[in-house]
Amino acid sequence: MAKKAITQKTAILLMHCPDLPGIVSAVTSFITVNKGNILYLDQHVDSVEKVFFMRIEWSLNDFIIPEDKIEEYFRTLYAQKYNMYFRLYFNDYKPKMALFVSKMSHCLFDILARYTANEWNVEIPLIISNHDELKGVSERFGIEFHTIPVNKENKAKQEAKELALLAEHKVDFIVLARYMQIISENFISHYPDKIINIHHSFLPAFVGAKPYHAAYERGVKLIGATSHYVTTDLDAGPIIEQDITRITHKDSVEDLVHKGQDLEKIVLSRAIEKHIERKILTYKNKTVIFS
Amino acid sequence: MAKKAITQKTAILLMHCPDLPGIVSAVTSFITVNKGNILYLDQHVDSVEKVFFMRIEWSLNDFIIPEDKIEEYFRTLYAQKYNMYFRLYFNDYKPKMALFVSKMSHCLFDILARYTANEWNVEIPLIISNHDELKGVSERFGIEFHTIPVNKENKAKQEAKELALLAEHKVDFIVLARYMQIISENFISHYPDKIINIHHSFLPAFVGAKPYHAAYERGVKLIGATSHYVTTDLDAGPIIEQDITRITHKDSVEDLVHKGQDLEKIVLSRAIEKHIERKILTYKNKTVIFS
Amino acid sequence: MAKKAITQKTAILLMHCPDLPGIVSAVTSFITVNKGNILYLDQHVDSVEKVFFMRIEWSLNDFIIPEDKIEEYFRTLYAQKYNMYFRLYFNDYKPKMALFVSKMSHCLFDILARYTANEWNVEIPLIISNHDELKGVSERFGIEFHTIPVNKENKAKQEAKELALLAEHKVDFIVLARYMQIISENFISHYPDKIINIHHSFLPAFVGAKPYHAAYERGVKLIGATSHYVTTDLDAGPIIEQDITRITHKDSVEDLVHKGQDLEKIVLSRAIEKHIERKILTYKNKTVIFS
Amino acid sequence: MAKKAITQKTAILLMHCPDLPGIVSAVTSFITVNKGNILYLDQHVDSVEKVFFMRIEWSLNDFIIPEDKIEEYFRTLYAQKYNMYFRLYFNDYKPKMALFVSKMSHCLFDILARYTANEWNVEIPLIISNHDELKGVSERFGIEFHTIPVNKENKAKQEAKELALLAEHKVDFIVLARYMQIISENFISHYPDKIINIHHSFLPAFVGAKPYHAAYERGVKLIGATSHYVTTDLDAGPIIEQDITRITHKDSVEDLVHKGQDLEKIVLSRAIEKHIERKILTYKNKTVIFS
Repeated sequence: MAKKAITQKTAILLMHCPDLPGIVSAVTSFITVNKGNILYLDQHVDSVEKVFFMRIEWSLNDFIIPEDKIEEYFRTLYAQKYNMYFRLYFNDYKPKMALFVSKMSHCLFDILARYTANEWNVEIPLIISNHDELKGVSERFGIEFHTIPVNKENKAKQEAKELALLAEHKVDFIVLARYMQIISENFISHYPDKIINIHHSFLPAFVGAKPYHAAYERGVKLIGATSHYVTTDLDAGPIIEQDITRITHKDSVEDLVHKGQDLEKIVLSRAIEKHIERKILTYKNKTVIFS
Repeated sequence: MAKKAITQKTAILLMHCPDLPGIVSAVTSFITVNKGNILYLDQHVDSVEKVFFMRIEWSLNDFIIPEDKIEEYFRTLYAQKYNMYFRLYFNDYKPKMALFVSKMSHCLFDILARYTANEWNVEIPLIISNHDELKGVSERFGIEFHTIPVNKENKAKQEAKELALLAEHKVDFIVLARYMQIISENFISHYPDKIINIHHSFLPAFVGAKPYHAAYERGVKLIGATSHYVTTDLDAGPIIEQDITRITHKDSVEDLVHKGQDLEKIVLSRAIEKHIERKILTYKNKTVIFS
Repeated sequence: MAKKAITQKTAILLMHCPDLPGIVSAVTSFITVNKGNILYLDQHVDSVEKVFFMRIEWSLNDFIIPEDKIEEYFRTLYAQKYNMYFRLYFNDYKPKMALFVSKMSHCLFDILARYTANEWNVEIPLIISNHDELKGVSERFGIEFHTIPVNKENKAKQEAKELALLAEHKVDFIVLARYMQIISENFISHYPDKIINIHHSFLPAFVGAKPYHAAYERGVKLIGATSHYVTTDLDAGPIIEQDITRITHKDSVEDLVHKGQDLEKIVLSRAIEKHIERKILTYKNKTVIFS
Repeated sequence: MAKKAITQKTAILLMHCPDLPGIVSAVTSFITVNKGNILYLDQHVDSVEKVFFMRIEWSLNDFIIPEDKIEEYFRTLYAQKYNMYFRLYFNDYKPKMALFVSKMSHCLFDILARYTANEWNVEIPLIISNHDELKGVSERFGIEFHTIPVNKENKAKQEAKELALLAEHKVDFIVLARYMQIISENFISHYPDKIINIHHSFLPAFVGAKPYHAAYERGVKLIGATSHYVTTDLDAGPIIEQDITRITHKDSVEDLVHKGQDLEKIVLSRAIEKHIERKILTYKNKTVIFS
């Protein structure tokens, strides 16, 4: 079942700027005066950084500024004045998401099941993997699959191939669905805050490889999973979503892996959904997640 | 440790009205134009009921309308126009909370511990009980304690005594901290949406007496607690907060009671906190809980 | 990744009987004396019902009683003496699970993803549905699919057809993966404690149809899902597993449905896993779930 | 309300030893043959370390070995043979617990509320603090309070004073209820696996001072608390219990402190309860927590 049918065309504005009195009033006036009906507004003030964040969505039914002029008008009239960073989206655009996978199928299946059920407003033009194992899954769902093996020697060349494929398919953002390869700084620079990873621990605990082994060694009573944007700092990018599950001394490392997979897939899918719904702003390695 | 020291005087407006375009813009303009700095804004549209809800807080430092005139100005200029229900609060007023208890001490201790530690912006002028058991606890914390036994025959008379005490102490709202007596319709009518109860189940499961026994009988795997405003419909008032904890077949009824007490006290205290912070609006037997 | 490879052949004994001193000692002696190595033991005494429950698993590597004689010996030597109800399983038998579905795919995908990844020691010979919608999913995973539409008039005849198919495929247990049809008493009697259902509420709250609508109406702050064995009492069979997720006033009925689906699939899959691993005993409409 | 009244005298045996076939059978026979009725048995095999763990509790009503001889008999007949580490407890002994506190009251209040309500089978002969702030709380509950300020220079001398007080009061174990002082190796050596600490993070994330500040900096979406036995390795001792709560970008460091306090007190109290109930075994820096 599709989560939400699009019943009217809307614009979504995500923004942040130095905190000053009057911003909410100014932006809401801009919309109201021009006959836009505000459907959603959430704002946040980071009182340490003195930064104002806002997400606002309004109906374009009677909005008098033409769609392709809204960005220009808003920039000219407000963004410059308040020194804003902003992004404007429209709810009828279906973003293109590429999946990177390796051998494990649980996150991939969870994503494709939602995709097949039209749960998200997204298109998946292609899947890229450094292995062959999940080619069959991809085929079952009728999605283009590219095997691009990567090692230390060929990484630059293979990433160039990947970037070409992504450009060709006009990919908007990338999901690493348990993709077991470190991505280069160059590659990341093409998709800032647009590569979503799932790490199989409650970050910042158990950074790096084999977090379930480390959790077992330490004897923790909870294991976690963390979805974050990829930055050049390994496992240290802005956190989007985390969750945990309870374990006991009876659980072996294999049990942790097994229990963790349910966490990983749900946490990753929640993060993807927030991204698709334009509910995430990043600022200085942290995220603001609107409700 | 006190949660938050009051660093500046603010006004808090809670409101709802029929949903119409332009309300956010109108209200934020009212504040901004008059030199109030908006510190918090959260809004919600109930798209089924077509009702708009908002909580907005602003600094009064430079606000040009005198404090005792804000309500009148807002009513005249906006509330009538938009057919609003609203309440205005000031952050420097310390509301007065009365506690009703019976024999169980866990919720009472949790509340008094927070009170002693100045965790909440609240005053507790008195504790009323239908039993003597917790008089000692009350005395340890230096709070006035009134034993007012209630039975079918004397309920009207005793409730009149309670109402007189509450009026005398200018009590703003009441917390039933495991008070094991049903309160009359007449009593409730004096404190609409101002009596907070804790029910020891995940409502609407296990309404009425002995919910832990019922949960044990049914063999559920989770038990819960629910804090809600008291209405004349027993255990059916607007829900403020709920939480659950996991149980197993190994847990006896006594274990459920024991595990449930930790839930009850935390859930009740979270509800009290939301009430004190003016973050709750009720509408048609449901609550809007602002963040 | 398969959860656990079978490294040695084991027997699993699930039993309950009136509580008497000496049972643990007697049963463990039976195993040890005959050169079985105990790998797992968990026991529980229901002190209200005065019933003793145990699950015990042992290696058959050096066990001197032939596999096909264990049941007989145990019955003769112990079960009669202690008035035991017991079941004996072997870890190398792969139980056969039939799936019943209607139109919603989320639980089906979750199960098939695990199946494809060899997460469970189970075989899925067929899927039965009262609708055609999920035939395509079934085909992608190469599993036999039977559309058997059911209505009031044809129910008896159609269920006979279903029972014949289940018998033909030697199905051990059935999973109702959001199958939207009430199953007859006659059908249930063929699979006592062998039909697992997922109900989309925190039972016993919101029994019956449209629980998410009811949850929305009541304004709860948590929604749940419950997996239980099907009995002739609708939504009232022994509960296997439950979980909840937090919601707010911002969530519409559609949001509840959407958030609930993640709960439903995880809760159902946990219940299936416990069943496959022979970790569930039922007694008087309640379950004992071994760790 | 007291959790459980003691209805019969029992012995509790906690043990671990190298894993060998026949141990369960041997130990349960020892009890059964001598007319002890087993009330509880839980066992665990660490298949990596090849170690067998067990907790067993039995009624002494008809047990033919005198109470003060059980330990000797068990050692002679079984412990030596199987190379066991074991501890024997009796349920009618009330262990003595000392509390160490500094300035924060939330954990102290939670413990004293349970103590006052007879929730635990424990005695609290004294409270020790490096500050004066909580003296008043202590007095309200009628418990001896000692202010023993500690700094780098006087630590050895002051700890000697503390140890003398603990010895004088025959203290069995110590709870650091947000005691903000590092305890010396010498002190710890007097109470191995008998000092319970609460750390205000999800260990091993945010070891050391100011974990809430660190959590805020990192932008995590969950904060946690961890109760563990104190070892000479700071914040790295065997973990007893952990839990988490959800936070958002809206939470300031002060909010984290506030939300974390509810976690800390509940997690610490759960750990204390497990310790009092003799449900914890430690082995190589990890705990086995019996159900």
